[in-house]
Amino acid sequence: MSRDFRQLLEAQWEQGKFLCVGLDSDFEKIPEAARQAGVGETILAFNRAIIDATRDLVCAYKPNSAFYEAHGDEGWKALRATIQYINDTAPDVPVILDAKRADIGNTNNGYVASAFNHLHADAITVHPYMGGESIKEFLARKEKGIFVMCKNSNPGSGEFQDLEVDGQPIYIHVARAFAEKWNTNNNCGLVVGATYPADIKRVREATPEMPLLIPGIGVQGGDLEQSVKNGKDAHGRGFILSTGRVILYASNGSGFAEAARKKTTELDSAIRAAL
Amino acid sequence: MSRDFRQLLEAQWEQGKFLCVGLDSDFEKIPEAARQAGVGETILAFNRAIIDATRDLVCAYKPNSAFYEAHGDEGWKALRATIQYINDTAPDVPVILDAKRADIGNTNNGYVASAFNHLHADAITVHPYMGGESIKEFLARKEKGIFVMCKNSNPGSGEFQDLEVDGQPIYIHVARAFAEKWNTNNNCGLVVGATYPADIKRVREATPEMPLLIPGIGVQGGDLEQSVKNGKDAHGRGFILSTGRVILYASNGSGFAEAARKKTTELDSAIRAAL
Repeated sequence: MSRDFRQLLEAQWEQGKFLCVGLDSDFEKIPEAARQAGVGETILAFNRAIIDATRDLVCAYKPNSAFYEAHGDEGWKALRATIQYINDTAPDVPVILDAKRADIGNTNNGYVASAFNHLHADAITVHPYMGGESIKEFLARKEKGIFVMCKNSNPGSGEFQDLEVDGQPIYIHVARAFAEKWNTNNNCGLVVGATYPADIKRVREATPEMPLLIPGIGVQGGDLEQSVKNGKDAHGRGFILSTGRVILYASNGSGFAEAARKKTTELDSAIRAAL
Repeated sequence: MSRDFRQLLEAQWEQGKFLCVGLDSDFEKIPEAARQAGVGETILAFNRAIIDATRDLVCAYKPNSAFYEAHGDEGWKALRATIQYINDTAPDVPVILDAKRADIGNTNNGYVASAFNHLHADAITVHPYMGGESIKEFLARKEKGIFVMCKNSNPGSGEFQDLEVDGQPIYIHVARAFAEKWNTNNNCGLVVGATYPADIKRVREATPEMPLLIPGIGVQGGDLEQSVKNGKDAHGRGFILSTGRVILYASNGSGFAEAARKKTTELDSAIRAAL
């Protein structure tokens, strides 16, 4: 039976789960207690411990490809093995590959094959700069989730995203284009940073039905309560709140996994309270 | 002695070389004559043959990461070995990794490490959507070339890139921002598609000094002569014209490498004539 990202996500939301753990596993920051002989084994062992400690609390996992690519082949193997581990031990939890890809035309087939056929992710993040036409190959995979970057969480994201055309910022043009023109398979979502809760509100108003992936709570200082209030849809769902470092590195001692679980529970409770 | 992308490129331009071969090596299209036992070995053998046949004619090679990532670890190994082969056999020819990356803040360090420390590329292509601040980590590598996507060659690239703000399209805002604000290490260039020669002109006028990477001649139908005329700087240099498929798949017979050389020579002559 084939997995369907949207169905997996809806089932998580049904259980009141909206928190995503960003598996941004920075080798340098991994606690001694998780260390193995090699870099790849260390990252995988750390991820397994984090997954074991959090899998019943989260709606998704989001490994960021950069932290794995940093280590070449070994990193790629650790990324594939991490996704495999999630699929094996938490088959109801979808995996969003935060790879921020996008090329032109059928060149994208390579990225599609990598993310979905090789790594077995359920969803991916993509850049919109080259237009919706440029990411048709991603959107054509109906059973996958395609999260288009809309308003990013970084301090300088407004440089081009906030430029106004016809009274609306570019990020709203992006949101509308993907909601109204390119989402013919109903598998498209948007990335909007928790560091800009007012912008989340504008995106939600412009696209009442799109799933929003909201990174930036935690170390980046995004506002959890406002992100939930502004990001939820008319049914009180429709969003994924993602955080990495505050969970992954909640402790650098031997109890890092328990500390990660404690922090995950706190954030889950905070989201439920904000709803 | 450390390699410097800009110096390598200037030395190629000094010799009148402006053509870049895009190593977009699609496994399915590789001629029988280059086939080996494995996928990775086949791609590498094909690339070696193309490199052997063209290295004295080109100013750069540009492998597109997607075609390698499509094959997982094996693809990554072929990519790394391809760049190694260029460095070994044509050390004066810089390698532009067409990876179209960009994430936020220090997450980019993973991509920087992958492209430059692990794969040993001399330059990379990046997405500007999240603002210049988001790619500081790339630009901080002074000895590397960072090509920012400006106006892409695909049919739908204008969807957001052509939106006008204060009388100028977004792609001109991107060009200016990188020329005037973010290029403090003088290692930044712009990608402008040969399919839009009038836009190349506008970008060249807005940024007289920036190196322009111009893909899209060949199968995409870009205009070589107009691209050269509009893309060259005041010194009759400053551009890289890139093409892949018309060279790589010039023949699918056992003479594919000779056919690739013939096509490369033709294009090199056409560029010289256009100058």
